[in-house]
Amino acid sequence: MKIQSYLAGEWCSGDGRTDTLVNSVNDAFIGEVSSLTSGFDQFLNYGRTVAGPALRRLTIHERAERIKFLAKYLLDRKEEFYRISSMTGATRADSWVDIEGGIGTMFSYSGIARRELNNDTFVVEGNVEPLSQQGTFVGQHILTSKEGVAVHINAFNFPVWGMLEKIAPSLIAGVPVIVKPATVTCYLTEAVVKAIVESKILPEGSVQLICGSVGDTFDHLTEQDIVTFTGSASTGQMLRVHPNIIAKSVPFTMEADSLNCCILAPDVSVEDPEFDLYIKEVAREMTTKAGQKCTAIRRAIVPQDKVDAVTEALIKRLTGTVIGDPTQEGVRMGALVGKSQREDVLAAVEQLKQSSEVVLNGLDNFQCVGVEGDKGAFMAPTLLHCKEPLVKTTSHEVEAFGPVSTLMPYQNLEDAIQLAKMGKGSLAGSVFTASRENARDIILGTASHHGRMLVIDRNCAKESTGHGSPLASLVHGGPGRAGGGEELGGSRAIKHYMQRTAIQGSPTSLMAVTNQYVRGADVKRDRVHPFRKYFEELEIGESLTTHRRTVTEADIVNFGCLSGDHFYAHFDEIAAKDSFFEKRVAHGYFVISAAAGMFVDPGQGPVIANYGIDNLRFVEPVGIGDTIQVKLSVKRKIKKSKKPDDKYVTGVVVWDVEVVNQNDEPVAIYDILTLVERQNED
Amino acid sequence: MKIQSYLAGEWCSGDGRTDTLVNSVNDAFIGEVSSLTSGFDQFLNYGRTVAGPALRRLTIHERAERIKFLAKYLLDRKEEFYRISSMTGATRADSWVDIEGGIGTMFSYSGIARRELNNDTFVVEGNVEPLSQQGTFVGQHILTSKEGVAVHINAFNFPVWGMLEKIAPSLIAGVPVIVKPATVTCYLTEAVVKAIVESKILPEGSVQLICGSVGDTFDHLTEQDIVTFTGSASTGQMLRVHPNIIAKSVPFTMEADSLNCCILAPDVSVEDPEFDLYIKEVAREMTTKAGQKCTAIRRAIVPQDKVDAVTEALIKRLTGTVIGDPTQEGVRMGALVGKSQREDVLAAVEQLKQSSEVVLNGLDNFQCVGVEGDKGAFMAPTLLHCKEPLVKTTSHEVEAFGPVSTLMPYQNLEDAIQLAKMGKGSLAGSVFTASRENARDIILGTASHHGRMLVIDRNCAKESTGHGSPLASLVHGGPGRAGGGEELGGSRAIKHYMQRTAIQGSPTSLMAVTNQYVRGADVKRDRVHPFRKYFEELEIGESLTTHRRTVTEADIVNFGCLSGDHFYAHFDEIAAKDSFFEKRVAHGYFVISAAAGMFVDPGQGPVIANYGIDNLRFVEPVGIGDTIQVKLSVKRKIKKSKKPDDKYVTGVVVWDVEVVNQNDEPVAIYDILTLVERQNED
Repeated sequence: MKIQSYLAGEWCSGDGRTDTLVNSVNDAFIGEVSSLTSGFDQFLNYGRTVAGPALRRLTIHERAERIKFLAKYLLDRKEEFYRISSMTGATRADSWVDIEGGIGTMFSYSGIARRELNNDTFVVEGNVEPLSQQGTFVGQHILTSKEGVAVHINAFNFPVWGMLEKIAPSLIAGVPVIVKPATVTCYLTEAVVKAIVESKILPEGSVQLICGSVGDTFDHLTEQDIVTFTGSASTGQMLRVHPNIIAKSVPFTMEADSLNCCILAPDVSVEDPEFDLYIKEVAREMTTKAGQKCTAIRRAIVPQDKVDAVTEALIKRLTGTVIGDPTQEGVRMGALVGKSQREDVLAAVEQLKQSSEVVLNGLDNFQCVGVEGDKGAFMAPTLLHCKEPLVKTTSHEVEAFGPVSTLMPYQNLEDAIQLAKMGKGSLAGSVFTASRENARDIILGTASHHGRMLVIDRNCAKESTGHGSPLASLVHGGPGRAGGGEELGGSRAIKHYMQRTAIQGSPTSLMAVTNQYVRGADVKRDRVHPFRKYFEELEIGESLTTHRRTVTEADIVNFGCLSGDHFYAHFDEIAAKDSFFEKRVAHGYFVISAAAGMFVDPGQGPVIANYGIDNLRFVEPVGIGDTIQVKLSVKRKIKKSKKPDDKYVTGVVVWDVEVVNQNDEPVAIYDILTLVERQNED
Repeated sequence: MKIQSYLAGEWCSGDGRTDTLVNSVNDAFIGEVSSLTSGFDQFLNYGRTVAGPALRRLTIHERAERIKFLAKYLLDRKEEFYRISSMTGATRADSWVDIEGGIGTMFSYSGIARRELNNDTFVVEGNVEPLSQQGTFVGQHILTSKEGVAVHINAFNFPVWGMLEKIAPSLIAGVPVIVKPATVTCYLTEAVVKAIVESKILPEGSVQLICGSVGDTFDHLTEQDIVTFTGSASTGQMLRVHPNIIAKSVPFTMEADSLNCCILAPDVSVEDPEFDLYIKEVAREMTTKAGQKCTAIRRAIVPQDKVDAVTEALIKRLTGTVIGDPTQEGVRMGALVGKSQREDVLAAVEQLKQSSEVVLNGLDNFQCVGVEGDKGAFMAPTLLHCKEPLVKTTSHEVEAFGPVSTLMPYQNLEDAIQLAKMGKGSLAGSVFTASRENARDIILGTASHHGRMLVIDRNCAKESTGHGSPLASLVHGGPGRAGGGEELGGSRAIKHYMQRTAIQGSPTSLMAVTNQYVRGADVKRDRVHPFRKYFEELEIGESLTTHRRTVTEADIVNFGCLSGDHFYAHFDEIAAKDSFFEKRVAHGYFVISAAAGMFVDPGQGPVIANYGIDNLRFVEPVGIGDTIQVKLSVKRKIKKSKKPDDKYVTGVVVWDVEVVNQNDEPVAIYDILTLVERQNED
């Protein structure tokens, strides 16, 4: 079988170097990959010119919807992916992280984009920035799609997750991708890309796949392209200084080596649940995916007086790990990805032995369930102990990318923090403690060197997603040795593929660009009350100025009696005179209630509900005798797609509300969020 | 005079290469700079170990206050800086941008930090992220100070602003700096650093200065250091690939060449005010700072049928520019920074002539007020015209860093957008138009290639800060050719010097780390009502659960009558039955008013005012007969510094409010913001 690339709308194979791919478990032949030797400039151009414009014609919510449909499509085909995944040496549990974890990331990004970003072809970010006294000149940030292609160079260990966690934010950002999986496991990525192409859910060319070498792709990158890299530091550093990357300032996100630590805090005694949780987590991180995880625990940092207890408990747990053919019942740890990977791990262990002693040797004879003869790429968990970790630095420098960790003792909290930082930048770290003080001191002491940190205690352990799991809503990536990149992290990840631009101009120009109301813009006034209009009929900036209302003492008294709020500033002449306001004032809640009384049109109509208020500020007090008036403007509209059991087809309308007094001074400003019926379903 | 460096607490000079600095206007000797040849590792370490810890012991607001005091201190000494600045060839107006603009940036950052960031030693960013079904495992992002030094390598053109716009965010982030100004104008930077050191406002070592070569500084950078670079692309690209930068993934922010465009939109006729504004802006950008600005307009993109009119008007305006000694009355344009700079500009003009013709020649005889004999570094404005800018690309590639621009005609909007993008990434672009459609199409069409874009029309021109002015609240930096960096942009700039870390754990652990209340955390309950406590006495997470209240039909009726809000969902049995809620429900405003009635303690006390509400969501409707109850918890505290005319010493207390019904389901959740009196002034 030829493993193929999908480029410029064709499945194809090259006539360059050919690699043979084998099953990690039993060395059985899977297929061959032959690299392409030319055409890379065309593939980039195909992405830029065919898929890019098609993606960018969709709104962000439309792109996000397609990612959701695609995730469902892939989920329906997961068993085929599981079957192929076992050939990489992965157990069902390992594959779950890769396959369903990867698909889950697509669902997460689809939701994040629809919740957090506006439904337009670009993103409006943050608030309108005042830039002038009179307010005729203002600013606002927007993010638009880069007009290039994102080239994703991925590692061998998560052939599915590694692709999906990157393409979801790229595609939602409006940027087509070229995926380059590690050759050794590219047959699994190919299977998923086959399904993606087949589904026809994305515009053609949105996802291209290069199996084999990337050839001279880097020579053809432009200022609008993006590169992400996951893999070894040496390869990453070589690519990062490619003359074209440097000359054109191509954004390059790197996620490389990481010697992640797991700290047992000094407050935990052997009897505490946190001790047991610690043992389980270190063992789990060593054996999941046979330790071939960039976030795996490489350094177990424990109090000096607990080293023996931890060693004993870890050895006990690790030696109970059932190793073997991952398709066999009961197997908990599969093979490394290949024999050469095993060679690399063993070489790294040799290096680690310069400063540590082996306390559990994964090379000794071990059982391998369902494997006959040559144990090929298998290896049992290997535990080392570095007695002087503050002075012997090998275990802070050398990453054995397999089921290998090193125990390190510490004398006091300061040393523990120092040891954690000696990793020189990690993706993830964790602390096991039941002490708030230790949690705070260790996290704040080590955060500068980490992209993600966990605190595990008995209260959260059951629901914890664990030390090694990057999550869509949280940043993944670490400083220094870990590559300095930032992936995932909610909508941040989508913005990595976009260009942030500060826009300046008059409120009217800004409104024309952003399609959001800017205070001071020229707006439409209509004799039809906006509550009488359907979603589609409301124009951005359309506004209503209400009748006025004079606030009286009776209002304050009635409002206090009805609400039960008799705060001194409203009811106590003596205290109020002495107060911040220097007089009795109306309740803020009364002001916004009376405002609603003025702008609400009471009859049955397209406005369904007011479900929220944002950014309310009471700017000036309202005293007895003051007369208030409200200006209500359509600020932002977000079309919602109809779900099967929704009663209405709706959209969110955000209104800018400004309550002013008789001197036209604002007394309260805020946004209200309403659900408004749509006339049409699309 | 020896221009000195300030390093490791000493003013010093080296024994390396010596440069002679001269007055740009008249070649008069100013001083000598002798580079240091060793000690760079020590200077970095001094910053890391002496100043870093001292800065990080201060809270962000305390650092911001010091930046404000320092800004005031420098402002008091501005006339001395103006005097020195004129030696760089700058007019008073040019120097205003550099000196008062730079100091203004400090004030801006001080305000931004105190408004937008919490008052702790680190930043808590975004919302708590739910990560589990039961809510026992949650996430949150924090940003902590990098533990290294920020090395700022600056350009010659803004010796003051270039330093201050970078050190303000660095120092507020808790990161000490080493400033390396361009040698040719370092005497002005030195004067400002002298004042900074003298003021003793910052912890010693916070600001170090290297005049002359940076020696082997880059060889000693670590994973926690940061480098920013402003200057030529060639130097920047060389530094960016320094082996140590690459090996340690040292963040490197670059701001390099930029061929900024200014587009006259097709709707503008010669009679429109926008035409005149366009001419003035192009001329201003060509002559301010003698065109030595990274944001200056290099490409004037105009409709084919307006080329003649624009050429004529521009030549008229440019030839009226009074050139000469900037200390002389009436002079509008000074000298370039030096003779070699003039050589560079002339060489670039020669290159530009390959694809353009010169329509105004700055080398022809021109008047030079107050300058006798040799016109040294002076040059008059030079305007070129490129007739085929879509095919002849020199003017999109070559930057003449002086009073030089090229006119380019376009046939239609699409071409204009294409031309703008041919700059391959710019810091700033502008559009002159009175048409909303043109504004929208041009901005959205070109934003992917720009860091900042302006729309100028008659309404905002008077208050506009202009094409060439970076502002503290808006991003400065562009993609591609412009270097791909991002500076300024509000609190984003501060975060560039910090490490973002995702924190995971139980609500209680997270609260311990972030010092902000997390829903679900173990909290303190006290029999003393929280409204009876001073700011200092309130503990994060401290909470009050109120008595209950059954909502009755009378409440709805009374509330509707008092507020005037008779919306059908509250008052119309028929419409309400058919509505989203399927029954009559209480007003949301009533629910939050009644909640206040339950949690407010009415007597005079330390709570001064409720000045705002954030993130209010009505989660479930409240029907007739439902019984509500409120939980009020201290979420966040922000100590405010007392201003001279404040009546009270106060702090902001943000409360988490959760209103639940009889089934313990949340019906409304929100934050309220109160001002609470403090017992002590510090």
